[in-house]
Amino acid sequence: MTNYDPFFSRSADVMRESAIRKMGTVLAQAADIISFAPGYPAPDTFAWQDFREIAADLLTGEDGTVLQYGATRGFRPLVESIIAVLAARGIAAGREEIVVTTGSQQGLDLVARVLVDPGDVVLLELPSYTGGITAFRNARARLVGVRQEADGLDFDDLEHVLARERAEGRRVRILYVVPNFQNPTGLLISREKRYLLREWAARRDLLLLEDDPYGDLRFDDLDPANTRSIKADDEDGRVVYLSSFSKTIAPGFRVAWIAAPAPIAAKIELAKQAADLCTGAFDQRMIHEACKRGVLERQVPLLRRHYQAKRDVMSSALVEELGDVATWPTPKGGFFLWVTLPESIDVEEMLQRALAQRIIYVAGSAFFVDGSGRNIVRLCYATPSHEHIVEGVRRFARAVREELAERRIAIPSLSRA
Amino acid sequence: MTNYDPFFSRSADVMRESAIRKMGTVLAQAADIISFAPGYPAPDTFAWQDFREIAADLLTGEDGTVLQYGATRGFRPLVESIIAVLAARGIAAGREEIVVTTGSQQGLDLVARVLVDPGDVVLLELPSYTGGITAFRNARARLVGVRQEADGLDFDDLEHVLARERAEGRRVRILYVVPNFQNPTGLLISREKRYLLREWAARRDLLLLEDDPYGDLRFDDLDPANTRSIKADDEDGRVVYLSSFSKTIAPGFRVAWIAAPAPIAAKIELAKQAADLCTGAFDQRMIHEACKRGVLERQVPLLRRHYQAKRDVMSSALVEELGDVATWPTPKGGFFLWVTLPESIDVEEMLQRALAQRIIYVAGSAFFVDGSGRNIVRLCYATPSHEHIVEGVRRFARAVREELAERRIAIPSLSRA
Repeated sequence: MTNYDPFFSRSADVMRESAIRKMGTVLAQAADIISFAPGYPAPDTFAWQDFREIAADLLTGEDGTVLQYGATRGFRPLVESIIAVLAARGIAAGREEIVVTTGSQQGLDLVARVLVDPGDVVLLELPSYTGGITAFRNARARLVGVRQEADGLDFDDLEHVLARERAEGRRVRILYVVPNFQNPTGLLISREKRYLLREWAARRDLLLLEDDPYGDLRFDDLDPANTRSIKADDEDGRVVYLSSFSKTIAPGFRVAWIAAPAPIAAKIELAKQAADLCTGAFDQRMIHEACKRGVLERQVPLLRRHYQAKRDVMSSALVEELGDVATWPTPKGGFFLWVTLPESIDVEEMLQRALAQRIIYVAGSAFFVDGSGRNIVRLCYATPSHEHIVEGVRRFARAVREELAERRIAIPSLSRA
Repeated sequence: MTNYDPFFSRSADVMRESAIRKMGTVLAQAADIISFAPGYPAPDTFAWQDFREIAADLLTGEDGTVLQYGATRGFRPLVESIIAVLAARGIAAGREEIVVTTGSQQGLDLVARVLVDPGDVVLLELPSYTGGITAFRNARARLVGVRQEADGLDFDDLEHVLARERAEGRRVRILYVVPNFQNPTGLLISREKRYLLREWAARRDLLLLEDDPYGDLRFDDLDPANTRSIKADDEDGRVVYLSSFSKTIAPGFRVAWIAAPAPIAAKIELAKQAADLCTGAFDQRMIHEACKRGVLERQVPLLRRHYQAKRDVMSSALVEELGDVATWPTPKGGFFLWVTLPESIDVEEMLQRALAQRIIYVAGSAFFVDGSGRNIVRLCYATPSHEHIVEGVRRFARAVREELAERRIAIPSLSRA
């Protein structure tokens, strides 16, 4: 039997399994589990009828390019559709700034490969999205967290961390942020802090990597101006912007995009040539037609209402079941509730108990590059039905109560307030 | 205006545009060009009617997972289909050895990331497939070529090169080979040399990366036993095997796979989590149904005849038009003729002339990591019709004749023989 250890690269040595992907595997193996774990959109919202018609129209055989290899930058008409989507978000981007990617995860990976050398510092929020963490970790970056407040990054900490890392001789060139309904916290970066971030990046000579999969999915209790992307006002060319059709059309078509200053987009194109030649032609056609035929435009308002209702259901259920011991900020969009439990609880240890209750979540520590967050869970309300959300929160609450009892912690009585 | 040069990684510094992708771009911009350049399968051979039916059956909305995120390893039933495809090729692989990839290019890229550190030597054939070259170059490998004979690698040169690189203190762990109808030469590695390669890899403690996109597309003048993969007899676990549905079903569904020893497959899964989470669910379902409904089985014999006929048309046209000045080995399968022109010709310089004739090819030098091959072209006969192949060869011959005349080289008369 060959021993493969000596064959692995240093990058392979640092690779770790994604906590979210792991939960996806658990989920696939047990039908009776209610999942609050992976951020899967609700498939009953997908525009199946439209997809069926579009597929039939595309697969006649009249246009062979529908199933052929295609340009690395992406199917040209889809690039034009993306430019229109960006314009609606206040972002003026030219063709030379766009690269279609095989999901936003590929966007993160390509950015890491083009902009990060081993040992370089990447700054990210505490907590931050695991997909970003993984992409940068595999590029052997040094991941350095910056504290987050309710309205976004703590600038004192940001300046402190940057100064410290640079003083120690490290190269710090990227700050990764998810300004709209952040995965995992659901938080928004405030308008003022978005302005400050742009100003800070120019002053400190860094690039901002702005990841925006959820921006369109804002709820009606929010002024849309608060979701305006940092990229929209990027006069200095400091922002690399990622977004995706996975949450608004469907993730099974792996289609997302990068909008970056042209010289960076050109390098990303080269990296993508080696990564997968091109994003699937059929998937791109499906998405392009969905844009062209107004499916995206029709879907977005429906999705806002759909996910807002689910947020409300989960919030109410949590108030009822765990209002005395748990806290969470109310997200104004997106897919997630970020729930802090009493400090005595370790949510990774609690996972066995949750599985016994047939409920899963993602442990908060997966999102913290400094190893904190052990008493926090990310709960995704996007996929399950209202009934399953209520039932799932009940099961989750049982797991929490059992865990608390086990730890012999006195639970404050509900009559306390 | 921000200067981005200081932001790029060392990997970004070594990235180069693929010569094949560049030709794809040229092609997309001019409808009257006959292309012998990218290795695109013929879209008129695709099973459009089957795809239309399968898509309609999949997109009813009854099964939400059709358009959802999926397992990084791949859609489980597709993995079973792949195991059956491998079994038909004499390869016994377990589920834990398979990873579905977003095209074989992603397979090459993931292997490079998991098995190659900057500065490591990767051995490859002279010439070799550009996609492999690009993936390893972006991983900042040192690419070292090994001479090729008509029946595969020159073992004297292989031993010499390995000894030299190791004596210089470099880590040499991978030999990349395309044993069946190699891209670009169309050559086969002989059965004896396949045996020797396995034996050599074990003795010298290397892994073989066997890339086999064309093995099924053998012509009827070849004993199938000659295409038996190296992996089929890999008792020592030395072979990482790549193959794809791009040439037999359609490249627009980006679905390929890796079969590797389980510990390597496990690392590749981790790398893929960060690279794109998972291959597109819809594409995987389409391919799985195409396997299940017998589409693949029906297609392969048709494709063998289709491409054999095109090989014959191109060979005959070349004999007629350039038989006095060009030579090529006759491929027994696959997509390519590898045509050596008189030494006075530089095919990159000739490209302008070829474009003026509305014909494109890929310059041979793209496939040589030692910079040789300046008088060789790769001609793909897979995509154009018979008429276009004949007309394209005529145009190509005109470009060659003009180039030779320009260089004032006496052309031997046809009566010479």
